[in-house]
Amino acid sequence: MKDNKLKITFLGGVGEIGKNMTALEYGDEIIIIDAGLTFPGEDLPGVDIVIPDMTYLVENKSKIKALLLTHGHEDHIGAVPFLLQQINVPIYGSRLTLALVENKMKEYQGIKYKAVAVKPRNVLKIGSFAIEFIKVSHSIAGALAMSVTTPVGTVLHTGDFKIDYEPIDGEMTDLPRLGEIGRKGVNLLLCESTNVCRKGYSMSEKSVGRTLDEIIKNHANNRIIVATFASNIHRMQQIMDIAEKYNRKIAFTGRSMVNISEVALKLGELSFNRDNIIDIEKVDKMDDKEVLIMSTGSQGEPMSALTRMASGEFKSLKIKENDLVILSASPIPGNEKNVYNVINALFKLGADVIYDELAEVHTSGHACQEELKLMHSLVKPKFFMPIHGEYRHLKTHKELAMTLGMDARNIILPSIGMQVEMGPNSIKETKTVKAGQRLVDGFGIGDMDSTVLRERKQLSEDGICVVCVNINNVAGEVVGDPFIITRGVVYADEQESFVQDARDCIVASLKEADLRGVEPAVIRASLRRSVSNFIFKRTKRRPMILTIVTLD
Amino acid sequence: MKDNKLKITFLGGVGEIGKNMTALEYGDEIIIIDAGLTFPGEDLPGVDIVIPDMTYLVENKSKIKALLLTHGHEDHIGAVPFLLQQINVPIYGSRLTLALVENKMKEYQGIKYKAVAVKPRNVLKIGSFAIEFIKVSHSIAGALAMSVTTPVGTVLHTGDFKIDYEPIDGEMTDLPRLGEIGRKGVNLLLCESTNVCRKGYSMSEKSVGRTLDEIIKNHANNRIIVATFASNIHRMQQIMDIAEKYNRKIAFTGRSMVNISEVALKLGELSFNRDNIIDIEKVDKMDDKEVLIMSTGSQGEPMSALTRMASGEFKSLKIKENDLVILSASPIPGNEKNVYNVINALFKLGADVIYDELAEVHTSGHACQEELKLMHSLVKPKFFMPIHGEYRHLKTHKELAMTLGMDARNIILPSIGMQVEMGPNSIKETKTVKAGQRLVDGFGIGDMDSTVLRERKQLSEDGICVVCVNINNVAGEVVGDPFIITRGVVYADEQESFVQDARDCIVASLKEADLRGVEPAVIRASLRRSVSNFIFKRTKRRPMILTIVTLD
Repeated sequence: MKDNKLKITFLGGVGEIGKNMTALEYGDEIIIIDAGLTFPGEDLPGVDIVIPDMTYLVENKSKIKALLLTHGHEDHIGAVPFLLQQINVPIYGSRLTLALVENKMKEYQGIKYKAVAVKPRNVLKIGSFAIEFIKVSHSIAGALAMSVTTPVGTVLHTGDFKIDYEPIDGEMTDLPRLGEIGRKGVNLLLCESTNVCRKGYSMSEKSVGRTLDEIIKNHANNRIIVATFASNIHRMQQIMDIAEKYNRKIAFTGRSMVNISEVALKLGELSFNRDNIIDIEKVDKMDDKEVLIMSTGSQGEPMSALTRMASGEFKSLKIKENDLVILSASPIPGNEKNVYNVINALFKLGADVIYDELAEVHTSGHACQEELKLMHSLVKPKFFMPIHGEYRHLKTHKELAMTLGMDARNIILPSIGMQVEMGPNSIKETKTVKAGQRLVDGFGIGDMDSTVLRERKQLSEDGICVVCVNINNVAGEVVGDPFIITRGVVYADEQESFVQDARDCIVASLKEADLRGVEPAVIRASLRRSVSNFIFKRTKRRPMILTIVTLD
Repeated sequence: MKDNKLKITFLGGVGEIGKNMTALEYGDEIIIIDAGLTFPGEDLPGVDIVIPDMTYLVENKSKIKALLLTHGHEDHIGAVPFLLQQINVPIYGSRLTLALVENKMKEYQGIKYKAVAVKPRNVLKIGSFAIEFIKVSHSIAGALAMSVTTPVGTVLHTGDFKIDYEPIDGEMTDLPRLGEIGRKGVNLLLCESTNVCRKGYSMSEKSVGRTLDEIIKNHANNRIIVATFASNIHRMQQIMDIAEKYNRKIAFTGRSMVNISEVALKLGELSFNRDNIIDIEKVDKMDDKEVLIMSTGSQGEPMSALTRMASGEFKSLKIKENDLVILSASPIPGNEKNVYNVINALFKLGADVIYDELAEVHTSGHACQEELKLMHSLVKPKFFMPIHGEYRHLKTHKELAMTLGMDARNIILPSIGMQVEMGPNSIKETKTVKAGQRLVDGFGIGDMDSTVLRERKQLSEDGICVVCVNINNVAGEVVGDPFIITRGVVYADEQESFVQDARDCIVASLKEADLRGVEPAVIRASLRRSVSNFIFKRTKRRPMILTIVTLD
């Protein structure tokens, strides 16, 4: 007989934002929900992306039956190629989600995989699991929650969601079905926590559309450029409808805008008249009031179309006084500086700029407090574990659940690597598996505790000094002049006197020591000390010191 | 006869946040308003502070008559020592502002200077200038606006201000006096712009007090720790009053908290019963409900008391389950990550944490749109120049002034280095003086365009590789093995094979070249190329390459 417990293992997205990944395991079957990445901050210099440590999955490779994707954002699908590199597993998700995965996999031609598109209310049977997909609203189309029924009970995973009573595609978060599933009994709710600190409700997507309509109507004679997330298909649909309404042709610019609009059009997620689309190269010849340009770069990304427009480096389009730029997005924490630099630069070029501080041109895709309360009240789970958030979000979500009457003993705050075991009437933390983050850069996938990062940080703060000395350790003498090279240590006008003084210091310190028969390693250590002290006295900094001692 | 124009030169704080500095010049007399600094972001690694380029002032040293300080925040007084190092000028400001300058100057014992305390409504005559100081509310006590009357008209400089109808010290922004001055006629208004994008009014300081009172009352049995800005004397006063009300003793922790409370108490800006103050070392022996700890660290600063409490490294106090921590501050843009790390860590230690996302425990010290409108309406200037803000703030402030009926032709947006000339009925931009930022680090004051920073950035992103080859250029041979040292380039487990392959590549590339009689410089360049290509192929990175060629 099988062990009648469901194991749930948290490999990402708990106690942090991003790189979401959860594994559900019953007997010798595992299904994975999401495989996301995170873009690193300034604290990880030179790192391109961060993905979950998948050791646990690799160790249990033979058990893995499916990867289920809630939606197509990078923090949910970005690690798919890295998972597939190690484990061949079929992938399930909405058509748009799978199209975005397919787009991504073009860079990994060697990897073959099976993908199966699912629809809301579809039920998928995989071994002992029955997974029902539930339509939810989010800032990307094709987002799904999942109700996973197992022999010991049902787990409801919300994915990322909001409740929008005016959805663009006419179908809102499937509240009736959530209610039905709740009434039948849910053992465990895994609910996202991104906006749990925000009171009230998130604004509807349509109300953003109304604001945009008003703005575009009031700028009838301006050329209009709208920057937004290419993956926010509903936002794009609204903007395109507004453009059509005011007789403006649309030009897309930015790689992801061009790609994703093409994919979404093919899938029917985006509908527009192809005659209304013009090439960005033709914009210059059109009347200002006849065009609307949809651009990437709403986060001030350095190489994006909007950033290049702002710096005057975008060939197809030069910003001018009659331009109105709308940033239909909020800066993601950490991007503020880049975003405001772009806004300042656009203003300086004479454009008018409207952004989220000035008008309601964006709304979040994540549920605020009242929406979360509705989810809890429909699902009415026995047990609850908040997911998708920093520790403070998970903690606040726990408190929110308690105000709704939930017993604190039935709530567990997950952390990366935590494994819980769920039975029909119990849940408990049982162990911690190897988990954490893996850093991906040009070189490959590395360890978090790698010295590479520490070294890069020290280099960036204090620079480096390389000292190269040729020694005759028979005679005990320095041969020739020591070489000294610094980078990031001294300002140009001080360079010459610095090197001269450093040289004197090195020669003096080596003269004091008796070098006869001394090993290069010993000389190097003593050299490092005296150079470090010399530089600290002079600059109050401790650059990295590399010493090279050659024997004559 | 003197040139009957007033020259106004903007040396900082325009088109940027921070390092505020403006010079007013009539004939051969100059007065300076503020001398501030900025703390650099991640884009300036290893830089400690940024100050204005003061070349223009040094070139006109003999004309400088006074430095007037609006208030004691670092972005207004932080560059005072660097100005005094170059120019001996008397300083005028409120008693608290001067006390904070004095505190700062303790680190510069060699510099003697004259400081004169002024009070609201005092009028100071300096040559052709008559400066009247006007009380304003701000997030530090002793803040002043200045009305500077000159032979060609009056300039009103607001400093940083807000309008608070419930001021803690009983005296609000002196609206009646601003109205009188406005009625007599103001030629030019220089008005701060920090919160110009925020609609409505800023919350009053007293309403923050009421929220704090409510929270502290409701946590009667918890030990309470409040982190706030030490310079926000009015916030401190309120917290101390609340502590006294609920019979809690107060302990200060954090250097600036201890220093500034001492200074403010001496000046009578802060009033409390000394018997109510206890040493932080004694807190552990007290009953939880009998103490309130006031701490620095509301910005998650790495070495601050609160950050050390959160990481368990603070000796005098260990965070425990019964602790309530209140962060009575908002994260300054750029500090979000540090602040949230501290909050997450405190939650994990079992403390309860209340911060600005969860309750109204902070208010800004800067005027929002309606307050700015009131300032404009009282002063009714002929000309207007928005100051203290990024370009987007200045632009939005211009639009705000235009909605109040001001003619766009009477508004100039200043930029760093801009000099305008004002006459009784005219204002125009006349020239640009040398200005910008100077970077201060352990080494001294450097240039913005210094290669040091570029080098540090490259080092931080891609690391460094040092190659050292000994060559006999008579025989045209490599002598011995090349040395290769990398830092921040390869992960530890790859190091050995990397160095081996790099060595092979170097030897092969040198073998191909005919080294006989070739200059080391030429060998170095070719070496750099081949090593760089080797590393790029292998890691997709371009680290800094240093080559050292010694001749055997």
